[in-house]
Amino acid sequence: MTALPTFADVQAAARRLDGVTIRTPLLENERVNRRLGGRLFLKAECLQRTGSFKLRGAYNFLASMTEADRARGVVGWSSGNHAQGLAEAARLLGVKATIVMPADAPALKVANTRASGAEIVLYDRVKDSREEIGQEIAARTGATIVPPYDHPWILTGQGTAGLEIAEQAATRGVTLDAVAAPCSGGGLATGVALGVKGISPTTTVHAGEPAGFDDLARSLASGSKQKNDRLSGSICDALLAPTPGDVTFPLAQKVLGPGLVVTDEEVLDAMEVAFREFKLVVEPGGAVALAAALTGKLPVKGRAVAVICSGGNVDHATFKRAIDRAAA
Amino acid sequence: MTALPTFADVQAAARRLDGVTIRTPLLENERVNRRLGGRLFLKAECLQRTGSFKLRGAYNFLASMTEADRARGVVGWSSGNHAQGLAEAARLLGVKATIVMPADAPALKVANTRASGAEIVLYDRVKDSREEIGQEIAARTGATIVPPYDHPWILTGQGTAGLEIAEQAATRGVTLDAVAAPCSGGGLATGVALGVKGISPTTTVHAGEPAGFDDLARSLASGSKQKNDRLSGSICDALLAPTPGDVTFPLAQKVLGPGLVVTDEEVLDAMEVAFREFKLVVEPGGAVALAAALTGKLPVKGRAVAVICSGGNVDHATFKRAIDRAAA
Repeated sequence: MTALPTFADVQAAARRLDGVTIRTPLLENERVNRRLGGRLFLKAECLQRTGSFKLRGAYNFLASMTEADRARGVVGWSSGNHAQGLAEAARLLGVKATIVMPADAPALKVANTRASGAEIVLYDRVKDSREEIGQEIAARTGATIVPPYDHPWILTGQGTAGLEIAEQAATRGVTLDAVAAPCSGGGLATGVALGVKGISPTTTVHAGEPAGFDDLARSLASGSKQKNDRLSGSICDALLAPTPGDVTFPLAQKVLGPGLVVTDEEVLDAMEVAFREFKLVVEPGGAVALAAALTGKLPVKGRAVAVICSGGNVDHATFKRAIDRAAA
Repeated sequence: MTALPTFADVQAAARRLDGVTIRTPLLENERVNRRLGGRLFLKAECLQRTGSFKLRGAYNFLASMTEADRARGVVGWSSGNHAQGLAEAARLLGVKATIVMPADAPALKVANTRASGAEIVLYDRVKDSREEIGQEIAARTGATIVPPYDHPWILTGQGTAGLEIAEQAATRGVTLDAVAAPCSGGGLATGVALGVKGISPTTTVHAGEPAGFDDLARSLASGSKQKNDRLSGSICDALLAPTPGDVTFPLAQKVLGPGLVVTDEEVLDAMEVAFREFKLVVEPGGAVALAAALTGKLPVKGRAVAVICSGGNVDHATFKRAIDRAAA
């Protein structure tokens, strides 16, 4: 595949994922709607198998590989959610998986990845190159590298969440004005844009990023790929990719609206609202799009807007920090 | 209606609720299944509108009333979830609602009930009779009393959750060995038993109760209605009804298996598992059936079992107490 992926590729991914991934609910809350003066829909991907949307892309990738390639195994690197998604996809398809994870990833994510039967290799997020470690393993074992976002099979797999959102909204007679998704390397946001726009072409799709890690927002604004200054330091541990991907960026320029940027404090407030109003456990990186909607950076007033809460793999201490911010 | 309600009544309720209540997801978790050695399904009624299953029964009741009765309004009493369900059902159907709530109900539940537009009357759980207060309001205004559980329209409305569980399991090719639901006065458990058994007659349905408030378990065991010694004192604020209902008890004798009784500590542990593994916010009373499954009081090993997590309206402090019990 050299051409940009299309809606048809998302539809094909949806057929592969049928019966494997959960069609997560699209939730709405009367009180939140009254407060915002519009309709806010929340796609609860934290309820997805493995606790995040990542199983969609990983399973679609592995199911698209040849039998011969699958027999040699897969290797991936990830701050945690792609790791769990990939490990579980590999388990479901009987493929050997090796996962390269940062040593400072949440303990819960490391333990859960190991529980799916994957082999774990830890690295230092600042000193080491996870790409080099992964590539060395692939060269030595013949395993296929499954990248966290920058591949058509990955992003079209993630895009099935967007397809579902558009279908679920249409079932209720709603045409969405906007959809927003959390963004690290852009796999979810671009895939979701393909999935949403294939059904609802007038809907604008936005990527949400944490302040200081808004490489995609700045890249979209400037027209060329920008890098983040730092590699760590946000509460959103899942959203720290340094720059947009070579596959995702040209697609993002075609299908995404302006980027949305939120602070760690706004993310914690959004997690508290998810707890109190939606009864959902959302991890910091999973809450950036919700934070954008609740702060008005993504306007909801007089509109119909859907946000993806992309994961729920959060440590106990961080979640307690969020619910300590109970609204007055 | 003097005869006991039937499966057909639950089906009729499901038609009334179509497009009003959410078909909440039936979730499963690979790690939990591996640990228990069976398949545990979790019906996430905490994601229901108003944060609990109670909208089902309340809406079914109001939709079954005559126009003339609806015009005179409704009155109800509740520790909180029935209050919110009834207030929201009344709002949706344009009916005036007055709700009698205990003064020690969680602040969140009182505030949320008020937000639906209902008039709130507070009472002392030990000194006052909520029944007398409600009956006085009904006599004075002509409003219809909507009881929290002891009415065929209420329990068959709640039973739609059971209908959905049986349908959702059947879609996956699963025949459930057992279903368990939290129990205060028995409206949910008996309704769910009707709904489940209409589709899956071999499934056993159990009611879960907090230790010290196991009036239904003791009533089923002894064959006659038993009372609880205390009226308050469990963390499960939603499950403190003093004795089984006149409608629910004879039905319970016919459709329920032995009762399940769990401690407050076991409930807190179950809330922590719901947080960590299922990414759900479950209130104490909503977690008793899950607690029974996790402790082996409701065996899961080698079986397929569904539990209803019936609500998520929990105060921040109580939820923090639960997640402080992180498993080793």
